Amino acid sequence: MDLIYKHEDLFAFTKTVFTKSGMNESDAALSAKVLLEADLRGIDSHGVARLSGYIRLKDANRANMNANWKVIHETPSTATIDADGGLGLVVANKAMEIAIKKAKAVGTGWVAIQNSNHFGIAAAHAMMALEHDMIGFAMTNASPLVAPTHSKERMLGTNPICACFPTANELPFVLDMATSAAANGKLEIAQRKGKDLPNDWVQTKDGLPSNDAHELKNGGSLLPLGGHKGYGLAAMVDIMSAVLSGANYGPWVPPFVAFLNPLENLPGNGIGHFVGAMRIDAFRPANEFKTHMDNWIKRFKESIPIDANQPVLIPGEIEYKTKKDRLLSGIPLNENVVKDLEALANSLSITF
Amino acid sequence: MDLIYKHEDLFAFTKTVFTKSGMNESDAALSAKVLLEADLRGIDSHGVARLSGYIRLKDANRANMNANWKVIHETPSTATIDADGGLGLVVANKAMEIAIKKAKAVGTGWVAIQNSNHFGIAAAHAMMALEHDMIGFAMTNASPLVAPTHSKERMLGTNPICACFPTANELPFVLDMATSAAANGKLEIAQRKGKDLPNDWVQTKDGLPSNDAHELKNGGSLLPLGGHKGYGLAAMVDIMSAVLSGANYGPWVPPFVAFLNPLENLPGNGIGHFVGAMRIDAFRPANEFKTHMDNWIKRFKESIPIDANQPVLIPGEIEYKTKKDRLLSGIPLNENVVKDLEALANSLSITF
Repeated sequence: MDLIYKHEDLFAFTKTVFTKSGMNESDAALSAKVLLEADLRGIDSHGVARLSGYIRLKDANRANMNANWKVIHETPSTATIDADGGLGLVVANKAMEIAIKKAKAVGTGWVAIQNSNHFGIAAAHAMMALEHDMIGFAMTNASPLVAPTHSKERMLGTNPICACFPTANELPFVLDMATSAAANGKLEIAQRKGKDLPNDWVQTKDGLPSNDAHELKNGGSLLPLGGHKGYGLAAMVDIMSAVLSGANYGPWVPPFVAFLNPLENLPGNGIGHFVGAMRIDAFRPANEFKTHMDNWIKRFKESIPIDANQPVLIPGEIEYKTKKDRLLSGIPLNENVVKDLEALANSLSITF
Repeated sequence: MDLIYKHEDLFAFTKTVFTKSGMNESDAALSAKVLLEADLRGIDSHGVARLSGYIRLKDANRANMNANWKVIHETPSTATIDADGGLGLVVANKAMEIAIKKAKAVGTGWVAIQNSNHFGIAAAHAMMALEHDMIGFAMTNASPLVAPTHSKERMLGTNPICACFPTANELPFVLDMATSAAANGKLEIAQRKGKDLPNDWVQTKDGLPSNDAHELKNGGSLLPLGGHKGYGLAAMVDIMSAVLSGANYGPWVPPFVAFLNPLENLPGNGIGHFVGAMRIDAFRPANEFKTHMDNWIKRFKESIPIDANQPVLIPGEIEYKTKKDRLLSGIPLNENVVKDLEALANSLSITF
């Protein structure tokens, strides 16, 4: 059963959890904002459902709530950041600010981040570009759950990519997708509903096909999107996020969960992200681009549907509608998430 | 049946075809080089098999062999090019040179191209970055064959993306993939072999599932890679290549074949590409990155295989081996391609 919470209340609670855990006011507010953006957009697996996980990582000395990130290398259009073991929620946002500033100066800006932790949803960072009439990008590597094609070993994360494009009057185009066939959140939904998975989402620990939503617990792995191409995309994200920044890559990416230990002899620092911003008017006048984006969107929405009741959707459309709804009507939380947050509140002597 | 041709002979023939068709010496040599790169790498659908198609487009006044491309907009890290209706084979290569030059100056370089035609394989352009210790990117939109999720209308091309990364001692990582489940070339192979297609490659004109390799001829459409995520990726490529550059997008992309006419009231000029180069040492020292790339590749090749006889492959690995083989042993051409080239030679009063 789901319980409904007001966005403002969840934000205030989340911010308090972060300040009580040693974060300064402004980083806590930013972390809460980024985390809540997931709940607002309907990406329930990446919102407050993860809050206690961040705190457990801090308790295990694997997330630094008092981090001092810094730029360790830069050119006019690029920078590399050492996140000092802090949360990606904060540093990816700061990195995006730097990317936007560089784009203002020289047309585009690109920032690679090492020594970080989970950054929430990619869209929360990439979409910062939109209000500046820029194209935004964000990607991250993640702890290994996905087997490359022909392997039964977990070597890659769900490694999401977000690319977003501003519009004139239509809702912006916001693609934010895992490069695995399905992210973990979708498996959890199938588990809760007791449903079988579609083909090609998971395989057994021996690399055999499976439709079991619990396959990961049995040592199985997630499968890349659409076979070997998804493996290639996930690998690209891993390399851009980690080999380029100096973070850990492939099977060495530290687990997001505190009860699993990182491997030894790591090749890098923490996990890695990559963000970027491209000024539209570095290519053509922004109003021209945005008018054509509206035209693009209208034409795609009018493309002939297979089923008249299911028109073509634009990437990001559902999330915008969900956010509008949830800002008005509140955010539904699964009862297990509620119990988890109540326990977290207890442990910090605050109320939920 | 396949006939074997020496690379040098096919190059000389291709270059002659282009010069006889009005192209200057250096553009003809570049076009032949880019086209042959596809044959060498085993992407047979994008090599000399397309040569007569380019000439038919020229004969229909839809490809300009005497094009004067020019930069119409730029910033320190970006440029937009009007290709003057020429072949993408030439202009995408020139655009990549500009991207590399800008990356040398400010860390990264990004070039959007409008008013172009088919550019061959994306890898032929993106890989130019590798010898400069840069990451290379190339993408293009293409004539509409792919239906967005929930639609039965052809709205997107196979819209490929290439991303390539330099290495120290291993072969470079070169991902070059269509964002459709399968590109047209794979359907043609199935047609020749009289084989059924896997699920999720094509749908009928009514949007129903199909395994028929001839479905496109019956008005059906290709399907995006892995469902709605592939639609999102193809859309991203379309927007980066065309909405950003001022080219045609979506269903308005002019057909590659001369026997189909472009639509009327087009929103842009020709087809569009997008290329980019990122200097590795704009993020971290190039030797560090390349050593870690070698480590990445070795670790992935060692990941536990499902079948001991089929180890994990690295993107680009097969193509490097094919190129090495074909430079030594020659390029096999399908007999229909040979007949087509003989007819082309006849029409230009040259020998094949």
